[in-house]
Amino acid sequence: MKFTKMHGLGNSYIYVDLFEEELEEDKLSYLAIAVADKNKGIGSDGLILVGPSESADVKMRIFNADGSEARNCGNGLRCVAKFAFEKGYVSEEQFTIETLGGLVNAEVHQKDGTVELVTINMGPPRLKKKDLPMTGNPEEETINEEVEVMGRKVYMTGVSMGNPHAVFFVDDINEAPVETIGPALEKDSMFPEWANIEFVEQVSENEIHFRVWERGSGITQACGTGACAAVVASVLNGKSKKGEEVTVHLLGGDLQITWAEDGHILMTGPAVTVCEGTYSTAI
Amino acid sequence: MKFTKMHGLGNSYIYVDLFEEELEEDKLSYLAIAVADKNKGIGSDGLILVGPSESADVKMRIFNADGSEARNCGNGLRCVAKFAFEKGYVSEEQFTIETLGGLVNAEVHQKDGTVELVTINMGPPRLKKKDLPMTGNPEEETINEEVEVMGRKVYMTGVSMGNPHAVFFVDDINEAPVETIGPALEKDSMFPEWANIEFVEQVSENEIHFRVWERGSGITQACGTGACAAVVASVLNGKSKKGEEVTVHLLGGDLQITWAEDGHILMTGPAVTVCEGTYSTAI
Repeated sequence: MKFTKMHGLGNSYIYVDLFEEELEEDKLSYLAIAVADKNKGIGSDGLILVGPSESADVKMRIFNADGSEARNCGNGLRCVAKFAFEKGYVSEEQFTIETLGGLVNAEVHQKDGTVELVTINMGPPRLKKKDLPMTGNPEEETINEEVEVMGRKVYMTGVSMGNPHAVFFVDDINEAPVETIGPALEKDSMFPEWANIEFVEQVSENEIHFRVWERGSGITQACGTGACAAVVASVLNGKSKKGEEVTVHLLGGDLQITWAEDGHILMTGPAVTVCEGTYSTAI
Repeated sequence: MKFTKMHGLGNSYIYVDLFEEELEEDKLSYLAIAVADKNKGIGSDGLILVGPSESADVKMRIFNADGSEARNCGNGLRCVAKFAFEKGYVSEEQFTIETLGGLVNAEVHQKDGTVELVTINMGPPRLKKKDLPMTGNPEEETINEEVEVMGRKVYMTGVSMGNPHAVFFVDDINEAPVETIGPALEKDSMFPEWANIEFVEQVSENEIHFRVWERGSGITQACGTGACAAVVASVLNGKSKKGEEVTVHLLGGDLQITWAEDGHILMTGPAVTVCEGTYSTAI
């Protein structure tokens, strides 16, 4: 089986071209587990299949390292866009990608004939407590709301980007209590489906530092939806402006994020090809 | 840069063919760190270079995931032998490999035209306390010696396979205190260079179960020199016989190990090619 390994800010997947390869549906979970394994497989956060779509220009399916199928992944979408464009499966720089979570608009940015940056339209955030979901008045938003964690009062902004995010502003990102408040809040009863816990240091209207305790994964190098949620929280708290681009510094690298006037979030970031090859192990 | 990823019992490396590729000496450490990284590189325990030798049939150099150069690696040697034979750099089934730790004899075993198993002559064990090294009478051996660990009396056999091993026999491998006694003893002052801590359940004269707390790494799927040390300890304690093959069940798979009449240890086990490809990132 031919494969390409790509990463977006260190979030890496094995990409397989379903325009060329045929894979059996009932072996996909096992294949994802096998290729993701650093010891006996290639090593990645999972498997992404790129193939023809009936409703969009290309279709992606994403499988986590545990074999489960995911709805979406911001870092993966950028790599899918680069993959589809460079392989010639789309000819325009703007095109659509079908995912389990719906249709997504992508735009590739070329430099010297290769795609280095990709913009993904992540859709609009949803802000009501019922959207995250969070306990409390389902129709209310959660903006700078006081909560008590580990005997300490902190101020939280809640954002859904299809998944739940709780954002906290801190004075110094290097002192952010990611490892303590992260796990303490992630599975708090106020979040029936758990939550991603994020910390933001606002440098200026157009620049923030970001750290995340990712739901189910702990500290990770990058969380695309989390970075979007952070910019939404900055705007809601009057620290950034709608319609203006904000540079988000994550552990794995930088993203450019704009909460556009039409309400959608545009996320621009790198997509990198690590290697291409042939996977030898029988599947 | 062309590469092959291979593993022996889950101990995986990126293999580069120095008969074909030219790499700059001062970039090798950085390259090992880069390719070993699962997030932004390929993902492995390190980098192994296979090339021409002046004193043997082929030469191997091994770099750990932290960029340091290692002397040797049993699981890596089996893969080097498969790699060199299948690429046609040696034509006989028995040949020699030059390592930083000295010359090593290898023999490949073919099935349907591919190498599935490889036997490595690991040389003779050394048993004196000064050889491990261990504190105490430097000329004495350590066979079933009582030591106190965490307030408990246990019986230890010490073996050097070029690196220090302390072996303990247990009744049930699933109850072996790997995670408690392992770290408690690894850096004990009786081992000036620390030690690998191993637990063995003797099933019969020719079969043992094996678990390891590897020096500097903790619990790992397989430790080739540790499995050899375990068989030596079994013979020294009258549980196995010199000259007879012992099957060692490790977490990552099985090894066949014989303490031959000439004093050398022969280790036979699998070598597996995971994938071949081209690494795209500039180095």
